[in-house]
Amino acid sequence: MIPNERKDVQALIDRLRAGDARSVSRLITLVENQAPEKAQVMASLFPYTGRAIIAGITGSPGVGKSSLTDRLIAHARDKGLTVGIIAVDPSSPFSGGAILGDRIRMQSRSTDPGVFIRSMASRGHLGGLSIATRDAARILDAFGKDVIIIETIGVGQSELAIAQEAQTTILVLAPGTGDSIQMMKAGIMEIGDIFVVNKADREGADQTVMEVETMLMLESSKNGWRPPVIKTQAVSGAGVEELWSQIEAHGRFLSEGEVGRARRRGQLRDEMVEILTERLKNDIWHKASQGRAMEDLLDSVEQKELDPYSAAGRLMELIH
Amino acid sequence: MIPNERKDVQALIDRLRAGDARSVSRLITLVENQAPEKAQVMASLFPYTGRAIIAGITGSPGVGKSSLTDRLIAHARDKGLTVGIIAVDPSSPFSGGAILGDRIRMQSRSTDPGVFIRSMASRGHLGGLSIATRDAARILDAFGKDVIIIETIGVGQSELAIAQEAQTTILVLAPGTGDSIQMMKAGIMEIGDIFVVNKADREGADQTVMEVETMLMLESSKNGWRPPVIKTQAVSGAGVEELWSQIEAHGRFLSEGEVGRARRRGQLRDEMVEILTERLKNDIWHKASQGRAMEDLLDSVEQKELDPYSAAGRLMELIH
Repeated sequence: MIPNERKDVQALIDRLRAGDARSVSRLITLVENQAPEKAQVMASLFPYTGRAIIAGITGSPGVGKSSLTDRLIAHARDKGLTVGIIAVDPSSPFSGGAILGDRIRMQSRSTDPGVFIRSMASRGHLGGLSIATRDAARILDAFGKDVIIIETIGVGQSELAIAQEAQTTILVLAPGTGDSIQMMKAGIMEIGDIFVVNKADREGADQTVMEVETMLMLESSKNGWRPPVIKTQAVSGAGVEELWSQIEAHGRFLSEGEVGRARRRGQLRDEMVEILTERLKNDIWHKASQGRAMEDLLDSVEQKELDPYSAAGRLMELIH
Repeated sequence: MIPNERKDVQALIDRLRAGDARSVSRLITLVENQAPEKAQVMASLFPYTGRAIIAGITGSPGVGKSSLTDRLIAHARDKGLTVGIIAVDPSSPFSGGAILGDRIRMQSRSTDPGVFIRSMASRGHLGGLSIATRDAARILDAFGKDVIIIETIGVGQSELAIAQEAQTTILVLAPGTGDSIQMMKAGIMEIGDIFVVNKADREGADQTVMEVETMLMLESSKNGWRPPVIKTQAVSGAGVEELWSQIEAHGRFLSEGEVGRARRRGQLRDEMVEILTERLKNDIWHKASQGRAMEDLLDSVEQKELDPYSAAGRLMELIH
């Protein structure tokens, strides 16, 4: 990196720390685009992170994640806290109009300077989106936001991975959708730190709560944290206060005990391996694109003298 | 690998080559589970691959992908060709009942020994599913299936990546869903080799065809291949014959010209880098879990003396 670029990044970070919202946008775009300055940005920001509450909200389409997020924003704002929202859509190509509507509804919050909203979508590598989401949350943390909410569209494998970048993962269900049974089958109960049954005025809400509680009893306890199941009505705001208390309680659980520490260390370990893997991959591309090695190997594979796995082994020997 | 395991894998491959369907299932499970024998299996199979037509079918839920796949199977069987189907669901946790219904409907084909159907879902790493799908297609190719169809549920980023493992990617749309506009916005027109407007008896079918054709004119031509737009009715079978001809035409285009060769080489190059990255990642985990290096680095990050990016750099120096 040339000295000027280093200076530019530092200036951007200084402005961020001084409260300039445009710097936030620019820095998030920078990590999203995997700009060469990314590592420097994240390294410089790191000392200012670790203060915010970071919650991930996930669940099937239509369960009311966006309305619930909106209620949580209002609740946090009433308490005088500032909020950052990262709305992540890993399957953006065909997300359709409903989601756009949600977004526009949430954008109404963006006239409040205490709320910062950013959408992120994946055009390329999904693993990359998960890393970018985590980095964006750190940028908002360093910016000084008290509460950061990562909201995902849908609840596929990629959404689960993204929601787990948060400290506290909230799984939202609605009565009568059969989601809880599906979750049990897929064995993903363990990712939820807090379960929310939204649209609690609907028929079957109590049954859904019971289903989830039964499943939680079948699961091994999360090392001392028993995930609560909360009924909410995002439309009226009922249950949102309890949800907020539980988010805070889980935050305290994470920061105070040995279990929380182990979990944070586990996340950091995953992150380091991920960063290193990404770096080595770029390294492979770079080295393989120089010289004839890759082309020669492709010739051999094309002529069926070599299979792709053996060719990859040869490539490793050549560029290591 | 101990000699016995090597012998077992070879026996499994011999039985596969002799037409034993149970060996196919066992070999696909083996690659799906990332078994240690995986590289040996794929290396041993590789010489027998490259003969089948491999098509990927993707599109939003409800456009009729499964019905269309069913029609294609019938068409291929009428021509005396054998068929392998890989039904991939990357977002399985919440896929719900409708998909199960589709699957059951397709299973009715499984009484035909000329048809092999396999479902694949991702519980773990998404990148892994994409690799496993490609390997499964190769196994079916080596098994001797003439036509292999990779059908994905939904059309998120992960589905697109999976559908692109095929030689020919078919994008299915339905009239009046707004999908074509969404596609254009997301800039994913380029992934389709063939466009299908299914449910062509519905109002708006001609308009959807026109929209897609207009968009294709705006895109740069795919190096000599102009993606056709075909109207089908999966229910009556109308248009399926034309779709089949276009799949064959695209196959010829790929195998005969320089463009097709470049594309195959590009796919192979990606595959080698992917295999290598996966291998290095496992290597990192293995080395990092030995000794104190990782724990010491985590201590430093926890105490904010070091950020994760710098720590990853140190880890690389230590284990390289």
